[in-house]
Amino acid sequence: MPYDPSPRAADVVARTRALLDEVAPPLERALLGGTPFRDLLPDLGAARARVKAAGLWNPHLPAAHGGVGLSLVEYAHVAEVLGRTPVGHFLFNGQAPDVGNVEVLAKYGSDAQKHRFLEPVVRGEARSCFAMTEPDHPGSNPVWLGTTARRDGDEWVIDGRKWFTSSADGAAFAIVMAVTEPEGRPHERASMIVVPTGTPGYRIVRNLPVMGEVGTDWASHAEVVFEGCRVPAENLLGPRGAGFRIAQERLGPGRIHHCMRWIGVCERVFDLMAHRLATRELAPGDLLGTRQFLQGYLAESRAEISAARLYVLDTAYKIDAVGPKAAAVELGGIKFFVAGVLDRVLDRAIQVYGGAGMLDDLPIAWWYRHERAARIYDGADEVHKANVARLILKGYGAEVR
Amino acid sequence: MPYDPSPRAADVVARTRALLDEVAPPLERALLGGTPFRDLLPDLGAARARVKAAGLWNPHLPAAHGGVGLSLVEYAHVAEVLGRTPVGHFLFNGQAPDVGNVEVLAKYGSDAQKHRFLEPVVRGEARSCFAMTEPDHPGSNPVWLGTTARRDGDEWVIDGRKWFTSSADGAAFAIVMAVTEPEGRPHERASMIVVPTGTPGYRIVRNLPVMGEVGTDWASHAEVVFEGCRVPAENLLGPRGAGFRIAQERLGPGRIHHCMRWIGVCERVFDLMAHRLATRELAPGDLLGTRQFLQGYLAESRAEISAARLYVLDTAYKIDAVGPKAAAVELGGIKFFVAGVLDRVLDRAIQVYGGAGMLDDLPIAWWYRHERAARIYDGADEVHKANVARLILKGYGAEVR
Amino acid sequence: MPYDPSPRAADVVARTRALLDEVAPPLERALLGGTPFRDLLPDLGAARARVKAAGLWNPHLPAAHGGVGLSLVEYAHVAEVLGRTPVGHFLFNGQAPDVGNVEVLAKYGSDAQKHRFLEPVVRGEARSCFAMTEPDHPGSNPVWLGTTARRDGDEWVIDGRKWFTSSADGAAFAIVMAVTEPEGRPHERASMIVVPTGTPGYRIVRNLPVMGEVGTDWASHAEVVFEGCRVPAENLLGPRGAGFRIAQERLGPGRIHHCMRWIGVCERVFDLMAHRLATRELAPGDLLGTRQFLQGYLAESRAEISAARLYVLDTAYKIDAVGPKAAAVELGGIKFFVAGVLDRVLDRAIQVYGGAGMLDDLPIAWWYRHERAARIYDGADEVHKANVARLILKGYGAEVR
Amino acid sequence: MPYDPSPRAADVVARTRALLDEVAPPLERALLGGTPFRDLLPDLGAARARVKAAGLWNPHLPAAHGGVGLSLVEYAHVAEVLGRTPVGHFLFNGQAPDVGNVEVLAKYGSDAQKHRFLEPVVRGEARSCFAMTEPDHPGSNPVWLGTTARRDGDEWVIDGRKWFTSSADGAAFAIVMAVTEPEGRPHERASMIVVPTGTPGYRIVRNLPVMGEVGTDWASHAEVVFEGCRVPAENLLGPRGAGFRIAQERLGPGRIHHCMRWIGVCERVFDLMAHRLATRELAPGDLLGTRQFLQGYLAESRAEISAARLYVLDTAYKIDAVGPKAAAVELGGIKFFVAGVLDRVLDRAIQVYGGAGMLDDLPIAWWYRHERAARIYDGADEVHKANVARLILKGYGAEVR
Repeated sequence: MPYDPSPRAADVVARTRALLDEVAPPLERALLGGTPFRDLLPDLGAARARVKAAGLWNPHLPAAHGGVGLSLVEYAHVAEVLGRTPVGHFLFNGQAPDVGNVEVLAKYGSDAQKHRFLEPVVRGEARSCFAMTEPDHPGSNPVWLGTTARRDGDEWVIDGRKWFTSSADGAAFAIVMAVTEPEGRPHERASMIVVPTGTPGYRIVRNLPVMGEVGTDWASHAEVVFEGCRVPAENLLGPRGAGFRIAQERLGPGRIHHCMRWIGVCERVFDLMAHRLATRELAPGDLLGTRQFLQGYLAESRAEISAARLYVLDTAYKIDAVGPKAAAVELGGIKFFVAGVLDRVLDRAIQVYGGAGMLDDLPIAWWYRHERAARIYDGADEVHKANVARLILKGYGAEVR
Repeated sequence: MPYDPSPRAADVVARTRALLDEVAPPLERALLGGTPFRDLLPDLGAARARVKAAGLWNPHLPAAHGGVGLSLVEYAHVAEVLGRTPVGHFLFNGQAPDVGNVEVLAKYGSDAQKHRFLEPVVRGEARSCFAMTEPDHPGSNPVWLGTTARRDGDEWVIDGRKWFTSSADGAAFAIVMAVTEPEGRPHERASMIVVPTGTPGYRIVRNLPVMGEVGTDWASHAEVVFEGCRVPAENLLGPRGAGFRIAQERLGPGRIHHCMRWIGVCERVFDLMAHRLATRELAPGDLLGTRQFLQGYLAESRAEISAARLYVLDTAYKIDAVGPKAAAVELGGIKFFVAGVLDRVLDRAIQVYGGAGMLDDLPIAWWYRHERAARIYDGADEVHKANVARLILKGYGAEVR
Repeated sequence: MPYDPSPRAADVVARTRALLDEVAPPLERALLGGTPFRDLLPDLGAARARVKAAGLWNPHLPAAHGGVGLSLVEYAHVAEVLGRTPVGHFLFNGQAPDVGNVEVLAKYGSDAQKHRFLEPVVRGEARSCFAMTEPDHPGSNPVWLGTTARRDGDEWVIDGRKWFTSSADGAAFAIVMAVTEPEGRPHERASMIVVPTGTPGYRIVRNLPVMGEVGTDWASHAEVVFEGCRVPAENLLGPRGAGFRIAQERLGPGRIHHCMRWIGVCERVFDLMAHRLATRELAPGDLLGTRQFLQGYLAESRAEISAARLYVLDTAYKIDAVGPKAAAVELGGIKFFVAGVLDRVLDRAIQVYGGAGMLDDLPIAWWYRHERAARIYDGADEVHKANVARLILKGYGAEVR
Repeated sequence: MPYDPSPRAADVVARTRALLDEVAPPLERALLGGTPFRDLLPDLGAARARVKAAGLWNPHLPAAHGGVGLSLVEYAHVAEVLGRTPVGHFLFNGQAPDVGNVEVLAKYGSDAQKHRFLEPVVRGEARSCFAMTEPDHPGSNPVWLGTTARRDGDEWVIDGRKWFTSSADGAAFAIVMAVTEPEGRPHERASMIVVPTGTPGYRIVRNLPVMGEVGTDWASHAEVVFEGCRVPAENLLGPRGAGFRIAQERLGPGRIHHCMRWIGVCERVFDLMAHRLATRELAPGDLLGTRQFLQGYLAESRAEISAARLYVLDTAYKIDAVGPKAAAVELGGIKFFVAGVLDRVLDRAIQVYGGAGMLDDLPIAWWYRHERAARIYDGADEVHKANVARLILKGYGAEVR
């Protein structure tokens, strides 16, 4: 089939799946069972060493940058497999936001920045975070930021408040979006600046309590402040005023990564749902799977997941072929379409499991809570729909806002 | 308007709302912020004392039983107000499962049972739990139970495993559903037995981890086992084999309580949603409330909540007038209809708040997690839909299963 | 029950239902079978005579104006019954747009206008139409009209094009919305003018082909033009520039009429659906009603219709009590809520009937086609949702467009 | 892109589109405008001659059988283009039910049958129909038929009643499903028999009134009876008792044809919707396309159609590669998934057009009416969902009914 993985990708996928099935279950159980992520770091580290030894480390990166060397479409299949467990991407060093940060550093970083910031992340010795979203400014209007970086001699002096700075807890550095050109055109006001987390004036206010959970380490989302936080001028990442543009570029492949991870979640949950229907009895000899309501949930999930996967793979293919800009409609479309599928599949699975679906004994409830955000982060459904419509209508000769 | 509260109910509602607005906010904040419910008991107790002093204690009970003395329709309005905060019902002693247990004890309890079990609960000095659902038998088939109670001399010897025994942690006694007549007709096999929680052989295995939270005390759901657990014969509650029938009776008013609580949740969340739309700016001077997608969420929520409230009140009125049996179609209908509205209103509110909607700073995420169960507990949507259809088709001359 | 009809209304409802069951079926069958409405006029006339004789004529009008003399809430119950068949309202002279036109003429008409235009319609000797919507201007922006009326001596000279002028075919007169004050404020530009249909310059261009049907007579929707069409100055209906305001007033009770008619449609269709499920066999002895998917359709329909009826009746009660202006949120809410219920009930019924549901042998397909417009006419869903949101947000201190 | 048409297919698609754009519009307008299909036959014939001359005749057939010689995946792209207008498939001789009948005759027909029945249809000189569905037996249980064929000497004597015998009006022959082996196993009772329409005892009772339209000729659905209808024994098509099996085989490619036709409908309607949004003004200078509700409709349609097309093409590819049996889950999945997309896209388009969307001036309303059946014919959604679930659960070790 055209969208089966290439032989090379199929091999990576198979080995990834096998290794994951071996190392992930106890870690997943511990995480779902409430063990703080931070306490899992030793065991996670041991598993990550096995991934490296197996040559599966950094599946998203070119071989030249210490990765497996797959195309975007090829990696998409790997991302799906990793998505089957909440610890998958971390185990293979494919976790957000490091993947995006590495991408930006690889493209825009100076040699010194690459050496100091990129390389430890690629080797898995450090983590990073990305400080863009602000509590007092809507994420849906990324060109309106309150955080500023003022040039003072050889330094940038940063002031502002960010939140949903994912994985800030334990990160070695943050890439910060701050307004450096307040008089510039809206899309050209912000720049990216690298801030080592030990810098005075940088502070984590709190790890946000997200859906009942104040996480730790990688599995956390922080509120951070910059109060007269000074970094050297050379910490500017990319050109002045290019922050928004670079952030946009970052989204293309990242979108594919997110969507394929969600497909992986869906497939795992589909599996759990089918298993339940095939084994749970309502009365002796009376299988749950005989009930049409639940048959409907299963069949609808199958169709939606299959269609969604093809839609994402096709978009990835298009990016590989002609770049993300030409695929803007598709990149918007897959975002809300797949997030919607994910939402419904999780909802149905809970209904199939009943009370057991509410429990953290299975990953369903975990994803139900945490991936509710899938329809929000990286652009809310509503933002993407409006944007896709605008792009389409441009093709019909109309400029609409 | 016909479904405005009666003058008496309006007075109780107003005083309830005023007192609640005074005492609930710090308790709610603490609960949402992760303080274990158990640690809140002193402050909750102080607030409960104020409720008693205000004459608003036990709003669901007749005056003769130490309550406010409202009709079901009248209490429904109070239940809505209490539903506006997760701590509302507990503060006024109207919390499940005590309300249902009290109802059963009042109707079927011996004088000794009333004295020992019912009265402390009514006074707010003790709490209780109801052990019916089992992990190994589907809740949707309540006549298939694994827990047995065998008569041995003057005692019942109970063996079995239950879960979702809500509020078992800290309860003084459990009302247990156990098969006492294994040879009886399916609906006449189980009986209700009162088991003081100190009884040897009764044990809480764990508080269940529900959507990221292992609760405590009242705010918990336990897995419990009965291992050769012996209680005196007189702990039988109601006739032998009547357990299922009594459990069914318990559902009528309880359904109204649940549904009106959900309406209260919806109204609170609607309020939060409207407030956000009316104040949040997307850009200076550009209100979030100007966006049609979000206007749609608000308007649809308004219509659905208003229709749902009338539907529940009308059903309550019918129960007051002709009893729950004659209102069986409506009692099934409101269950899935209102649970569906609740589900959608919460979902929309999260989308309106974006990232902030994921946080426990507001009660939206709390309800989103915990009230996902509204479509499951007290009969899953699917069960009610099938049942309502069967009742309707009986009226058209067809017996369907 | 509070929303049961009053004794007086119950009596009218019962007699209406009985008479309707007697006279409507052959007329409905003929209409569904494709007989042009015009060809049915003799038989319809005979049935209308029986309605008059029974004292059930004009159930929407006060006794003083030749009607039955019910309150809006009381009439709402009658409107539901009439809605059970496509010929119901016409048989009892309660058909749109005559009902609205009569209302406007009664309130704003001069004595001469009442004598000449209103009275024949009330007696059922003439019909009328209302020419507001225009093909080249969106109905969702009613203050932007292309049709003008210029004062020339003692005459108005009207020019413009209208469509969806329902029932123009066979009407004695049209009430036309035309701009008379082009320099006025947007909401004060248009006036209402009565145009007898024989007036030179008034012409029906075509009866619109709506969902496969070019209707006739009352059951039609015309495109009409006014080309230098002259009527005497005294044909102005109400003050100059008051057209939009009067049109708005017309909507309140009319909204209740529409919504209760839809409830009537829903109940009839529900009946057909339940009957099918209770009698159709999938195999000998295997009733269609055993299938959960279809049980779900039935149960969901029951809940939605019951909730919707209460919502409409409550709104009608509010209009009776405090006027339509104070009920603006509810009037918007019921419009899209009930239209949505209607849409889903019809859709489910077709699915229950399968191929037979596509046929004009039953009224389901007829309503499916024609009442698709329920989500459009009298304000599209989208317009009402935005409007309801704006009204709500005003209560939260925000002015949004 | 992998699912772009092959060069050969791209060429056929381009030429098909060009020719269609030239010849279809006046025919489509006439059909939508109410001209009976029969009256269009001369003009249709002229256009069909041009199709033949262009070498685009029978795009679904192998070159050896007088067709264009495309694979199933290749033809799928052509079917999409033809689906853009209600007259598309007929113009290219790719219309149901002839396509399916030809397929069966090609595989199971005797030489005599091929000569007499298949060849004229392939040449476009005759049409055929397929008489399977019965009014008194549900289509969802195809093994329960009331029509019988009794062997009497050298003849079959057929008795029974069929409906939704599409295109019977004007057909040269019918392929009839009739029980010939009443004692056989359920799936082996029926056989296929060819009945020339002139045969005594065969009679069209009526063309069914479908959604307001009693069609004619190809664009019709008949109720037919067989009353002691005698045909020679050699009119048996395929083995005795193989009727059900052959009918099933017929469904695989036919499913792809249907689904791609629906995608074509969706794309045409999407085009109309986008055009409207890009050009219609709500007020001078205020484009309809600025409204978020409608932007949402457009964006959701884009995503759903794109995902649906890939899902169908992938299924077609799988059939080409491993046959329809191995693709049974996908064949069920695309049926309800694409029919659902079609349903929603049509619904949204009507809402975008408002009143104009109700009119037969555009094909939207035509498809809205006629393609409501897409969720019913060829297996209702509910049947396919249950079936897909059963197939999936078999893979999980459970046999459910």
